[in-house]
Amino acid sequence: MKIVIDVLGGDYSPDEIVKGAVTAVNLIPEVNIILTGDKEKVENILNEIGYKGDRIEIVHAPEEISCDESPTMAIRRKTESSLVKALTILKEQDDVIGMISAGSTGAVLAGGLFIVGRMEGVKRPALAPFLPTVYKDKRTLLIDCGANVDCKPEYLQQFAIMGSIYVEAMTGVKNPKVGLISNGVEDHKGNEQIHQTFELLKNTKDINFVGNMEAREMLSGEFDVLVADGFTGNVAMKSAEGTINTFTNVLKQEINSAGLGAKLGALALKKVFKSLKHRINYTEVGGSPFLGLNKILIKSHGSSKAKTIYTCVLQVLDIYKSNYIDKMRKGIESSSISRED
Amino acid sequence: MKIVIDVLGGDYSPDEIVKGAVTAVNLIPEVNIILTGDKEKVENILNEIGYKGDRIEIVHAPEEISCDESPTMAIRRKTESSLVKALTILKEQDDVIGMISAGSTGAVLAGGLFIVGRMEGVKRPALAPFLPTVYKDKRTLLIDCGANVDCKPEYLQQFAIMGSIYVEAMTGVKNPKVGLISNGVEDHKGNEQIHQTFELLKNTKDINFVGNMEAREMLSGEFDVLVADGFTGNVAMKSAEGTINTFTNVLKQEINSAGLGAKLGALALKKVFKSLKHRINYTEVGGSPFLGLNKILIKSHGSSKAKTIYTCVLQVLDIYKSNYIDKMRKGIESSSISRED
Repeated sequence: MKIVIDVLGGDYSPDEIVKGAVTAVNLIPEVNIILTGDKEKVENILNEIGYKGDRIEIVHAPEEISCDESPTMAIRRKTESSLVKALTILKEQDDVIGMISAGSTGAVLAGGLFIVGRMEGVKRPALAPFLPTVYKDKRTLLIDCGANVDCKPEYLQQFAIMGSIYVEAMTGVKNPKVGLISNGVEDHKGNEQIHQTFELLKNTKDINFVGNMEAREMLSGEFDVLVADGFTGNVAMKSAEGTINTFTNVLKQEINSAGLGAKLGALALKKVFKSLKHRINYTEVGGSPFLGLNKILIKSHGSSKAKTIYTCVLQVLDIYKSNYIDKMRKGIESSSISRED
Repeated sequence: MKIVIDVLGGDYSPDEIVKGAVTAVNLIPEVNIILTGDKEKVENILNEIGYKGDRIEIVHAPEEISCDESPTMAIRRKTESSLVKALTILKEQDDVIGMISAGSTGAVLAGGLFIVGRMEGVKRPALAPFLPTVYKDKRTLLIDCGANVDCKPEYLQQFAIMGSIYVEAMTGVKNPKVGLISNGVEDHKGNEQIHQTFELLKNTKDINFVGNMEAREMLSGEFDVLVADGFTGNVAMKSAEGTINTFTNVLKQEINSAGLGAKLGALALKKVFKSLKHRINYTEVGGSPFLGLNKILIKSHGSSKAKTIYTCVLQVLDIYKSNYIDKMRKGIESSSISRED
């Protein structure tokens, strides 16, 4: 099975992306990788690492798409970019099961829509990462975390269905609990969009809708699927991310300004801190799949390092093996809601 | 100076609210308190605590407004409720400088609008708490965190002005940096509402608009005022709050499941953890003032304990001494933007 990876984009490209690909082929026997990017540069990195195998193919793509460009324009014009080449390979080659990019979110999403294409009946594909929770073995899906900033209630309704199908495929949880992110748990809470969505979700047979929930409960593990428009979901997720950074930072400051006893205490807690970091680290959960396309496309974090890319490769494999594409197709086809846009 | 406190509402009322009031009069010589609530119950709590002074007055108000009621209806009908009595005292008595309630946010806001009244020229009063940041002595104002879930861009524009005036009055920071919460820092990021607001803010002379910001930077201390509609602000704030809870919880789990060495390490870090908790604890920063009313009204957290109420009393005093009401009135009057609703 082949997975295509865009080596450009993100804070540590191309080096860390290429390293991640090498880790993946070294640790996962069943996977071959196609890298799209500047051929010479990629070859140099592979040489530096000392990779001599034949399971990494390079497709030359000298252009780069940056975050400052209009995503749609860039996708149309920069046909020699690493991102467009990767998307085209994903679309055209049957043996390529999925793709990973750490590049501009806007461009990855635009490319996913225009090049890879929506699944039939899907109104709006959505970015849906798993978030860590307070429980060690429980993850919660957030859909949408940034693909669709302006949403009709009908889009959110379908996100609930898509999220439920995906969670069931990936985790085996039956009738996943769906919560709608609002500013309070009561039925009447929310803005106009949430009020309308609440009514739709309450009457959607396909899902197990629990009701409105507060962002405070996002990592509580009490929900399987959290529904939001891409703007709200993005704010909720990034607020959590920033809070973790702040918390860690303040903890370090306090340890540094404390006495020797506390410093020794911190040393004794090294393993605990490592384990904590591991459990709440978003990047170890993988990237955000763009659900509702005809193929598996993962947007990995802009700060992805080799380990993140490797985790994303595992994630593509997991999603592929879950048979999610087929399940989603059937789920959308048999869904009780309108398939009109 | 008198401050009126609604003893009902919140998870620990009336006991903790009354205790907080007693702490306040004991520690702050210049303040007298009026408590609204069931007279007999409040007297019993005061007796239990052993308070014998004459600086706490009780105004009998037997009715309670719950979170399940329609706020507007409740405010109109329950004229004998502790909340409505407190609001009426705030409005009518000149020597009452401010009010605190831990009750239903919806009812406090509705009551603030209908009973206390908007300041002239204010389109929509907004809830604006200070958030802790990664810097010890820096706080950031979030406006609005829940009062107005559906906002026109013009409301957000005025939030930016109100927030700037308030931050300058409270912290002395000149030309406070204003950020607009969006799903990315680039100018083109955001949903339709944010696009329009961005254009307005860019052209508002009264403020120091820095641009779009990501919720990830909310606690980074890089901004003085964060502007959002009440829905988005609420989601951002509660997500941070929940993440802190989750982080703390996971840290405890990891310490508990670690060996003796780690447990001793945690013991040595007791003071560090306490200091950490203190720095990131929202309730120690006080409650959320409802900015843009004719008087000072603080909504304290639903989980307020005595210490929170005491902190809120200090906060009312601080706001009063900053001369915020006058400054806000003048600021709104001289503001370059339209004062039409």
